[in-house]
Amino acid sequence: MTLAASILANDRLALSRLLTQIENNTQEGRKALDMLFPYTGRAALIGVTGAPGTGKSSLVNHLARYYRHPAEGEQARRVAIVAVDPSSPFTGGAILGDRIRMRDLSGDPGVFIRSMASRGSLGGLARATSAMTQVFDAANYEVILIETVGAGQAEVDIARLAHTTIVVEAPGMGDEIQAIKAGILEIADILVVNKADRPGAENTERALRSMLEIGHPRSSRHFQDNQGSSPNQMLPASHDEQEMWIPPIQRTVSTEGTGVDKLAALIDQHQEYLRRSGGWQQREQARLKVELHAYLEEALLSRWRASISEVLYQDTLQALFERKLSPQEAVERLTASI
Amino acid sequence: MTLAASILANDRLALSRLLTQIENNTQEGRKALDMLFPYTGRAALIGVTGAPGTGKSSLVNHLARYYRHPAEGEQARRVAIVAVDPSSPFTGGAILGDRIRMRDLSGDPGVFIRSMASRGSLGGLARATSAMTQVFDAANYEVILIETVGAGQAEVDIARLAHTTIVVEAPGMGDEIQAIKAGILEIADILVVNKADRPGAENTERALRSMLEIGHPRSSRHFQDNQGSSPNQMLPASHDEQEMWIPPIQRTVSTEGTGVDKLAALIDQHQEYLRRSGGWQQREQARLKVELHAYLEEALLSRWRASISEVLYQDTLQALFERKLSPQEAVERLTASI
Repeated sequence: MTLAASILANDRLALSRLLTQIENNTQEGRKALDMLFPYTGRAALIGVTGAPGTGKSSLVNHLARYYRHPAEGEQARRVAIVAVDPSSPFTGGAILGDRIRMRDLSGDPGVFIRSMASRGSLGGLARATSAMTQVFDAANYEVILIETVGAGQAEVDIARLAHTTIVVEAPGMGDEIQAIKAGILEIADILVVNKADRPGAENTERALRSMLEIGHPRSSRHFQDNQGSSPNQMLPASHDEQEMWIPPIQRTVSTEGTGVDKLAALIDQHQEYLRRSGGWQQREQARLKVELHAYLEEALLSRWRASISEVLYQDTLQALFERKLSPQEAVERLTASI
Repeated sequence: MTLAASILANDRLALSRLLTQIENNTQEGRKALDMLFPYTGRAALIGVTGAPGTGKSSLVNHLARYYRHPAEGEQARRVAIVAVDPSSPFTGGAILGDRIRMRDLSGDPGVFIRSMASRGSLGGLARATSAMTQVFDAANYEVILIETVGAGQAEVDIARLAHTTIVVEAPGMGDEIQAIKAGILEIADILVVNKADRPGAENTERALRSMLEIGHPRSSRHFQDNQGSSPNQMLPASHDEQEMWIPPIQRTVSTEGTGVDKLAALIDQHQEYLRRSGGWQQREQARLKVELHAYLEEALLSRWRASISEVLYQDTLQALFERKLSPQEAVERLTASI
């Protein structure tokens, strides 16, 4: 049986092996990915991001537990967690993360947890994460939680990868941290104030709310419309609401799981909104396109590598080092023959 | 006069105009860069990085002021500051930063400050930063301070760009933040405990020191050698010391400028070490190589774009969206004709 077939047959060991192949970017892994691709496109991808110390991991654990043991009347869903740590490119923090989680959710065959530290480029990390979500998707994990640490480009990349992006804040993280999040807020579909039992939770929520008003001016415009001062009030308000998603703010205490059920409900609402509005398909296609272009760049580079003589390359590099050629002139020389 | 010639003639307005061209990645900007490239390679590139709230910006300002007004017997140096904020891809925080700085160092013709928020990809940001440092270098700025916010890949990219990388910490940033820095420590040439007048500075320094011992095992091995227990003690110790740089830790209070003179001295020592050990040339070449490859990728992609028919591209994209082709199969189809 091929690796891909074993995974479709729900073989956990095969799944684990493929994830390692993907991390190492092997030929075998790529082949299996190709075979699994037609079985993808069903899972809900949920990105969870926020600064260190906000309690993201514990929140993700509780979300996973909720999906396994939901409120009465709802079906349990199979859950995968991909925990990405792009801020530790060198050390093995990922392994520690695995161990801490294991105690929480181990033994449940409907849960699979994989963590991954950054290796080499951030681009490579994004590609590996994307590939892993496809494997989980094909292996019939219905919810895939993608957790990342840090503040910056990694979050934006998650937003492109996930259907629903959750940004986690916590009280007492300092003013400057809040300010810096202004950009990140704009990628949030749902905001969480975690550690909401701590002093300052109200301030954090208020700060988030005022930042939301800056970041989503449509929400305040919408509010004005309801005041009846705009000619747009003639339009059916329900239509307007259907097309607009204003990121809600949910308080949680992830150590105790408080508010996690409400957060899960908000996630469902967002995903229903995406399906209604066409946003789901839009995000899927944007994601596939990004992935296509990543593979394309790789393919073009490897073709170029095969076409160029080592002597010409070394010679050009030397001329660059001696500043006889500029980087752009060097590229012209290196691509003249293809 | 061309833009490049004006810059070599010390025209500040032309310099400012070219930096904007570079940010917008224009043809004119690229042409000027090409012309300036032979005049680069003289400046000292110093990267300053650390989490929000550590007081990096104020430290960078004080360093710049020190280079303009150094200790007696030393020559003033022309200073450029490139402040990069990869964590705010959407908002115009960079402009605010400019204004805050202006009050400190404005009016001095030997200082040029430019800040830049992330636009699009982190790769694009790294390329623009690299291009800007080249412009400053050609324009005879002797010291270029590159400041970035955030924790993660951006820091690693700075390390590749700068000759000397300074990682700034501050007391009371929380344990988890410290832990996450474990990876970042490994790119530090010099560590700074800023806000050293605050309680907890000793703890921060102690934590850094113990992390350094994990990250740089050679430093403790070296220590053991001096105990006389290793056969390596027969080697001349001075040779060993010459080849090894153990990141020193410097305390500063950047609001008052305390310790900044000592930090400047450590930077000079590191750069002398790099020149002695061949590390300077090594870092220069690595940086040029990274830049060459970035331009190469771009050139290959634009050639491919010119060669492919829009119909084939759209058709392939559609097949990908319908999951009739996997991303890898789609790439094969899109590159079959070239």
